[in-house]
Formats: sequence, structure tokens, C-alpha cells
Amino acid sequence: MNDIFTARGSVLIAGVTTGGSTVDIAIDEEGVIAEIGKAARKAIDADIIIDGTDRIAVPGMVNTHTHAAMTLLRGYADDMPLQEWLTEKIWPLEAHLTGDDVYYGTKLACLEMIRSGTVAFNDMYFFMERAADAVDEMGLRAALAYGFIDLGSAEKREAEIRATEALVAHIKARGNPRIQAAVGPHSVYTVSPESLRWCADFAKEQEIGIHIHLAETEKEVDDCVAEYGRRPAVHLDECGCLTPRTVAAHCCWLDEAECRLLGARGSHASHNPVSNMKLAVNRAMPYHWLKSSGANVCLGTDGCASNNSLDLLEEMKFAALLQKFAWNSQTLLPAHEAIAMATSAGAQALGTGPGTLTVGAPADVVLLNARATCNTPLHNTDSNTVYACNGGAVMTVLCQGRILMHERVVPGEEEIIREAAAAAQALVERGRET
Amino acid sequence: MNDIFTARGSVLIAGVTTGGSTVDIAIDEEGVIAEIGKAARKAIDADIIIDGTDRIAVPGMVNTHTHAAMTLLRGYADDMPLQEWLTEKIWPLEAHLTGDDVYYGTKLACLEMIRSGTVAFNDMYFFMERAADAVDEMGLRAALAYGFIDLGSAEKREAEIRATEALVAHIKARGNPRIQAAVGPHSVYTVSPESLRWCADFAKEQEIGIHIHLAETEKEVDDCVAEYGRRPAVHLDECGCLTPRTVAAHCCWLDEAECRLLGARGSHASHNPVSNMKLAVNRAMPYHWLKSSGANVCLGTDGCASNNSLDLLEEMKFAALLQKFAWNSQTLLPAHEAIAMATSAGAQALGTGPGTLTVGAPADVVLLNARATCNTPLHNTDSNTVYACNGGAVMTVLCQGRILMHERVVPGEEEIIREAAAAAQALVERGRET
Repeated sequence: MNDIFTARGSVLIAGVTTGGSTVDIAIDEEGVIAEIGKAARKAIDADIIIDGTDRIAVPGMVNTHTHAAMTLLRGYADDMPLQEWLTEKIWPLEAHLTGDDVYYGTKLACLEMIRSGTVAFNDMYFFMERAADAVDEMGLRAALAYGFIDLGSAEKREAEIRATEALVAHIKARGNPRIQAAVGPHSVYTVSPESLRWCADFAKEQEIGIHIHLAETEKEVDDCVAEYGRRPAVHLDECGCLTPRTVAAHCCWLDEAECRLLGARGSHASHNPVSNMKLAVNRAMPYHWLKSSGANVCLGTDGCASNNSLDLLEEMKFAALLQKFAWNSQTLLPAHEAIAMATSAGAQALGTGPGTLTVGAPADVVLLNARATCNTPLHNTDSNTVYACNGGAVMTVLCQGRILMHERVVPGEEEIIREAAAAAQALVERGRET
Repeated sequence: MNDIFTARGSVLIAGVTTGGSTVDIAIDEEGVIAEIGKAARKAIDADIIIDGTDRIAVPGMVNTHTHAAMTLLRGYADDMPLQEWLTEKIWPLEAHLTGDDVYYGTKLACLEMIRSGTVAFNDMYFFMERAADAVDEMGLRAALAYGFIDLGSAEKREAEIRATEALVAHIKARGNPRIQAAVGPHSVYTVSPESLRWCADFAKEQEIGIHIHLAETEKEVDDCVAEYGRRPAVHLDECGCLTPRTVAAHCCWLDEAECRLLGARGSHASHNPVSNMKLAVNRAMPYHWLKSSGANVCLGTDGCASNNSLDLLEEMKFAALLQKFAWNSQTLLPAHEAIAMATSAGAQALGTGPGTLTVGAPADVVLLNARATCNTPLHNTDSNTVYACNGGAVMTVLCQGRILMHERVVPGEEEIIREAAAAAQALVERGRET
């Protein structure tokens, strides 16, 4: 079994179901889909053959808003008022976080994502060099941003600029094509206009993305209007932060004009339905306005303190159902659109390829179990994927043609779980001592 | 491996975590919890020993609103306007259903429920004698009701009365203590007041439960007020149908007075958040009113045409999050209350015991994987169970001390999946021919 995890070379996925047909998929030595269909067997001399019997192939999923290392805080504090939760539980514990914690927490997050079919994620947190170590080892893709927060202080601003520059230089020096840097201004309420402008300029100069929280709560909108005389998306745009490489998370409280603005700028809106429901933000992202504006709507889980899972199959169900419920429409966000949010829209947001199973695309491939109860009967693959299955239906995961999980085995998973559990325990104990 | 599925006798679950401690659980030959703790090993001479290392024991879950055989329609039609979905898709296909279909569909449902930790369900559908065959074989508990619909027709009413009487006689004649009969008047908009009164009298005479849909949509409320001059719960009460053995599903549109009425009658309200969101009913069950009224609020999935899963771990997360979102409270329905909804409240609704892991209770026990990513770290078992885990974390399931699943193996599962898939395929083909 271990061979296929360490072996390098071309891969043939033989006799797999996709888009309603049974096909072969050929993946070349560079990890690119070389051929799909009858010609696939002849297109490559396969080093590795994966049996696709009873398997449904779908594109690998992309999680466009995470704080991966917060897996260590999973279940540490829930069911509390937001402000009390942040100030009495989350922030005090985060003050004790070390680089090692971020490494172990991000490895656990990568394991969880692989096991539920995610191949790429857009992460914002601290000690991101150590997050990069984890991503490097685990074999998936990530855009990594340092969470930039200046709270209007010029001194803090300089420190955040240095930290951002250092991370970007570090990531570029690694030269790992799976790992890219992004600039991570936290939000309009934690970052000054001066810093937002610096972030915009620096992202442009470095040709990298911007990852930001936007319009998560009504208070954010009210405060922004009170302080700057304009709504958050307009404010971001004035500071140059709404770009075709910007991923804005949450977007719950955007008004129709702000949705049009995101569409006009070609920006990406990351829908985080579980986090928004759990934290009771009182409004669901206006998907219908964003869709008609042409903005690219993708999907994200947020961190494990406010979800508490990284399973995008589950998140698709929450998205499809929350949109229907909150906007009172039985037909809003149908299954195939939810799948596109989690795959092609996510890949577009991070610039990691088309996010489809097509010739020339990176071989980011997930094989689902067609014989699971959730896929029985198989009237409609999309419906089953979104409404019936969860990450447990994922059997095999490839990223750039490399096998990260096969038949639900991920190399080293027991050690990752043991180390993350120990790191979390030690973190809580350090928190108690102070 | 097969031994433990067929063996009869006493069971010791050794060294399992529950309520924060590591204990032994002794189960006697009648399938009752004989002892928990240090004395457990001496309490019985165990025929079967289950290793509880890295396992968390929780009570078996109870699904209080299902149409189990609708697994065969999973994914057959989704993302459609409700009326079109019912009249053009669901009802025409249901017209072709046979008793065999109900048998195979219910077996698939039982398999899915066992695999996600459910040990008992409250079912309403047709050909329920065949559903009883399935439940009998699969080893879990069920309350089975024939869906009584007269649409105001006296002729139809007589037929429904005969069908109800026949099912109740059949279930009683089986003498299987795991299977009970219930009376299933479908709703106030499909059953005449005369028939509701007959159902109430018959349930009382037979000492069995009542299973009904209540206040699912605003239209149901408006139509009921227009026709009978009173809201649905008041109308049900006038017809004698609100009793301590009544399970009312949905309850989305109850007003505060109706919630108090359910509380006063000691009735049970089954919350079905996924179905309500998917069908965009535009209001979440007023859990806070029901709770303060003293009504017993339990949990249900509804059928697979409107969910499309039977996973109560997933349903708990939807319930805890929908309540927070819809009623704008970060603290409403915390994790431990969601677990009680799915366990003790469900058991109370069906009268199957306390639904807790306590001495003298039926040994309906679920063992969760403490080493799964969703349980790493393990700061808070309840939070992880509700917010992070899904049915995939369930490793072992016992019902009345009998082992239905162990280490995720259910005897005969491949055959059940194959037969259900074939039945669903044949059903759709019969539908096409007409």
C-alpha cells in the first residue's frame, strides 16, 4: 500500500464514473490530466493504476477561508455570546500559541481536509512559516496569509508590514509550486485605511492575492459607515483592496450595490454558512445578488473554533440549505451550483487551475464511494454528493497527480492525531498557568 | 468477527470513556445495563467483551420522524418548487411503490441509521407490514404507522381505518418488543376532523402513539384557520390528538399559545431542521417557546426525499445552528441540549426507555471513535459530537444489548445496498413506462 504514496510517475484511474459515464483518466508524470476516455490507456504508460470500479470522480475541493491551526481549539469553547467567547476564551488561549502549535494544528487540518476531499485551502493565521512546513509535508495546496491587524496604531502597523513581507519572502524562497503567499488584512474594523492601502500596493507589487473578512456582522457595517461614511465593500474598494485576486470571506451583510461592486472588480466572495449560523450573524450571504453581479462565489469553512469541522461536503449541504431557507426559495443554490462553488469557483479564486476534470488541468481528483449508503440509489450524483454524503464518502484523493489518500488511508495519520492532541493539551495547560 | 453479531449473552464494554470518565459497562443477557463502573466486571460473567479503548460511549440515538422507505427516492428530484416536486415527481413515483420496495428501502434506511448511531425510529409510510419485516431483521427499534389520508372522503376514510386497524393488529401479533405500532394521521390538511377523532380514540383504545405532521408551513396554518377557525395545534387538540403519546413533526409555525398547549398536553415536538431548510418553510421551530412550555422537543430527519440523509449526528449540528441563526442567539440550543434531543428526548417520545447510559436502562449504546480527526483534540465531548463529528465517527452500535455494528461492519450490508439499488432502479423504470 505504501508504494503508491511514495511512488512518482504517471497514473491511470481505470473505469471510473464521472459526469454519468464510465471512463479512464490518464495523468502524466507532471501531475496533469493527459487524457480522459478511450484514448487514456494509450496516452500514458502508467506507473500506477487505480481501480475506479464503484468510484465517482469529482474535482478536488477548495476551501477558500480557513484558520487551519485553530483545529487545536476545536470544541474548546462553544455556545457562548460572541464577545465573551473571543475575549474570555479564544484570544487568551491564542496568546499562548507557538510556531510548533501552528505546525501541529495545520497538519491536523490538512489531514482532516484530505480525508474529506479538499486539495487546496486559503489560510490566514500566525506563524505561517510553520503552516507552510505542514502543507509542504502533507502534499496539498495552500495560499498562506499572515493575519494583518494594526488597530490604527502606527507602531503595530510597521510590525505587521515586516511580518507580511517576511512571510511572502519566505514562501517565495521555498519555491514550492503548491504553496503561494497572500496578503491578509484581517478586516475593515481591525486594519487602518493606511494599512489597507499598503496591503493593496504590496499584493499588486508581489502579484499575490488578498484574503480578508468582509461584512460578517451588521455591527461591522454600522461601525464602518459611522467611521468612514461608507459601507465596508466601498471602503475596501477605496483602499484598493477589491481586486481580481481578492477573496472576501463571509459577505453576509453586503447590500445590492456592494454585490455589484464585487462583481465589477472581479473579486471572489467566500460563503461560510456554518460559521455564520453558529455565530448567529443574522443574515445569510446574498448569493442571488452576488451571482447576478458576476462575482465569483466560492465556499469556505472558517476555522475550527467556529464550525467546528473542515468538511466541505458538509459545508455544501449547509450552503445549499441556508440559501434556500434564509432567502425563502426552494430552488436557490441547487446541487450542481454548490459543487461548482466548492470546486471550480474555489480554484478560480486561488488561481490553482480550472477546478474541473478536463484535459490539461492539474490532476486534483477525488474518488467518492459509489457503493456507500449515501450514494444508494444513484439517481443523481450531484444531489447525492451535496445532500446525502459527507466527507466519509471520500475514498481516494490526488493533488497534482500525487496520491494523498487511498481507500481512506493517509500515511502517518495516527502520528498526526497524537501530536496534535498533545499540542492542544499543552496549550490549554499553558493557558491555565497564567 | 461474525460471532459477535450472532452470539447471544451478556456483554462487557471494557475501559470506555463516558461523561468524562473511563468505565466498564456491563450488559446482562436481557440486554439491560446491569452495572457501570468498577463493579461492572463482577456484575456479569461476560460472554462478549468489547474493547472500549479510544471509544466514547453515548446513548443510541432516536429518529422521531421518518419515512424510511423513501431512501429509494434519494436524489430522485431536488431543488424544485414544492408543489411541482410533489405532483410531478414524488407522488407519481410513489404510485408505483410495492411492498417489496418498502421492504428494501426500509432495510437500506435501517443500515444507514445503524451506521450513523441510530437505534430507534418513528416511521410513517405505506406497506408497513413489510417495513416491520425489515426492522425485525435489522435489529433496531421502530414505531410504525400507516400514513392515514382521507382528504375528507367518507369512502377513503373507511379504507384508511381498515388499513390502520390491520397494521396495528399485525404489529401486535408479531410480538416483537422492539417493534410497536402507532396511528399515523398525516396532517390537519389531509385528514378530516372525523378521522382525527377516530385516530385519537383508536390510539387511546390500543394504548399506542400518534404520529402526525404539524404546522410545517404557513399555508397549513392559514388554511386551517380559514376552514376550522382555529390554528392547527388547537384543532388537533379539539380532535383529541394532542396526547402524551403524540409525536408532532416539524412544528415550524406554532405560535406561543400553541407551544404552551403542546406543553400542557405533554406532547412531543420533533424538530426536522434539514427538511425545513431544504423545503424553505421560512420559519424555524420556536424551540425556546416549546422548551419553556415544557413540551418534549426531540429530533428527526424526515424522509430521504427531503433531507437526503438519515444521519442524526449531522441533524444535531443543523438543529443547533439553525436555532441560533433563525432566532438570532449565539447561545440557543447548546451542544448538550442537542444531544439530549437526539437521545433521551427521542426515547421519551417513543417510550423506549430513558435514553441514557444508566443502570436498568436498555443497552442501546453507541461507541464513537475518540481518535477520529473530529474528536481531536478532545476538549469537550459534547461539542465535538454535535459540531465536529458526523455518522462516520460511529464505530459500534448495540440495541438492547445486541451488536448491530462493530468497527463499522454491519453483517450483510453489501447485499442490502445491492438490493435497494436494484429496487430503486426498477421503480423508476416502472414510473417511466406509464
